[in-house]
Amino acid sequence: MAALSERQLVRRLSERFGSRAPGIQLGIGDDAAVLSASAAAPPGASWVASVDASVQGVHFDLRYATLEDVGYRAFQAAASDLAAMGAAPVGALSALVLPRGMSSVAIDALTVGQQTASVECACPIIGGNISRGGELSITTTVLGRADRPLSRTGARPGEQVWLIGALGLAGAGFACLRVGSTGDALGGCVQAWRRPRALLEAGLSLVGRASAAIDVSDGLAADASQLARASGVQIVIERDLLRATFDSRLIGASRILRRSPMHFALLGGEDYALLATGPALKRPLGAVAIGHVRRGQGAVIATGAHRAPLRGGYDHLKRTR
Amino acid sequence: MAALSERQLVRRLSERFGSRAPGIQLGIGDDAAVLSASAAAPPGASWVASVDASVQGVHFDLRYATLEDVGYRAFQAAASDLAAMGAAPVGALSALVLPRGMSSVAIDALTVGQQTASVECACPIIGGNISRGGELSITTTVLGRADRPLSRTGARPGEQVWLIGALGLAGAGFACLRVGSTGDALGGCVQAWRRPRALLEAGLSLVGRASAAIDVSDGLAADASQLARASGVQIVIERDLLRATFDSRLIGASRILRRSPMHFALLGGEDYALLATGPALKRPLGAVAIGHVRRGQGAVIATGAHRAPLRGGYDHLKRTR
Repeated sequence: MAALSERQLVRRLSERFGSRAPGIQLGIGDDAAVLSASAAAPPGASWVASVDASVQGVHFDLRYATLEDVGYRAFQAAASDLAAMGAAPVGALSALVLPRGMSSVAIDALTVGQQTASVECACPIIGGNISRGGELSITTTVLGRADRPLSRTGARPGEQVWLIGALGLAGAGFACLRVGSTGDALGGCVQAWRRPRALLEAGLSLVGRASAAIDVSDGLAADASQLARASGVQIVIERDLLRATFDSRLIGASRILRRSPMHFALLGGEDYALLATGPALKRPLGAVAIGHVRRGQGAVIATGAHRAPLRGGYDHLKRTR
Repeated sequence: MAALSERQLVRRLSERFGSRAPGIQLGIGDDAAVLSASAAAPPGASWVASVDASVQGVHFDLRYATLEDVGYRAFQAAASDLAAMGAAPVGALSALVLPRGMSSVAIDALTVGQQTASVECACPIIGGNISRGGELSITTTVLGRADRPLSRTGARPGEQVWLIGALGLAGAGFACLRVGSTGDALGGCVQAWRRPRALLEAGLSLVGRASAAIDVSDGLAADASQLARASGVQIVIERDLLRATFDSRLIGASRILRRSPMHFALLGGEDYALLATGPALKRPLGAVAIGHVRRGQGAVIATGAHRAPLRGGYDHLKRTR
């Protein structure tokens, strides 16, 4: 912690994060942040709140990401939950657990990453908490508002399954880092892993069109299964339609890594793409149909008439990334 | 983690925490919680949001508290920030970092403690996050609403300084635990440390009366100094008035511990009493005048005409409790 006391650090972060935003009556430095309800959420709108933790050794490894990346990723991962709800960001709270001996330069790098993401998401950091601890963790609460929030429960048989954003890039990027291959051809994937973007605009474009939505944080197989379970339906992903969405950077990296791009798309995670369902006629621009909803349960991948269950994905309690 | 997967654990917590409350449209299990803005905060009201972390080895030590105590205390500490804002609780998000190998029995104990506090505070847990990690931590986000939020910045010269709740009990209780004295005469203090209560009703009683408020989490010396700094005034605590508030359990425990009760009242922390300022004529029932506000800076303790600066208290980055 070098020479910084808690108060000095709060002041420093207050200066870094302390942007004035519409509806924010009171930001960092008091017992709590205060948001004007009428300014931040017009009558009839709902409040949306979510929290996401990023823990050293579980969600990140400083061999593969800088502290600035870590702060950036932690923030975008939290903001992605707002995207999945079709919510507009209002503000965020940042709770940091900082290891003994973490330098003020290191804290600066971490918080610059958070701040960069916060600005990109137009979601100001309006409060937080700082604590000492044995391992670095960043817990981000995001607050948003939504006229018609998108849950995971509304998918109905007969609807299409939509994908917004690219799948597998982040997973391939992380695999590149682990095997030490980060040449030019792989840079795009590595960057996708280090600097994911919450698809907030895309989430808003789903409002009034999609029946259900989820962000793909744990891999398509896991998150499609979650959506299927929550809605009480079966999600059918069509292999050919999914393959047609693959980014050329994913295909190039997969070749070098000698893995199938499908592997990364289904199991990779951390892309923060959006998976949604809805009637074909309501599909928004930018959403690609990759399957359909039918009666049944679970998520399956279809090749012609053959269907295989989709399993796997990331369980935050079981594996280390 | 024994046999519990992330999904099983989320389901278990959803059953434990999943109370239906007015204005909660969507609780645990989706990407985010959804609150009806109009139901939860009537027009003109503000939203209040705060986050507080409780980290093993920093905020608690399992030699002195059960996991149920730990969950309970973490929740009340977070809720206390709503009390200090004069806010009514709406809901909370719980982000848990659970060490490898933590049993489902242990997780049950922790979350039963959280749930007990949540019910007592009438602040339902509506969402959260679960992660694995090297050390146990509980990060609680509380959401509330306030017609006229109380900040730390409004204290004005000439006003009284008010105390609601007892000071020093928790600090004395913790000292008892550390020296291994927990006999009958000390039980009240130990209980005050293990099971602190956020003074939510008292916080609401300050609305329209107090000019500024803060909760005493780090000791009166530290928190009075914070209030003075935020308001740009001097807070004068009158020693005789403060001493007159001491609880008989504090006096008894201090005698056994051979420390001054004043020591615990000024430096103890974790009582979650409320310190506020306001005009004498507006002092609410239950608030005791313990000093006054004047021009100047910092917090001082006055004995007759003599004034000594109040220093010390808990810096979460520097010391281990």
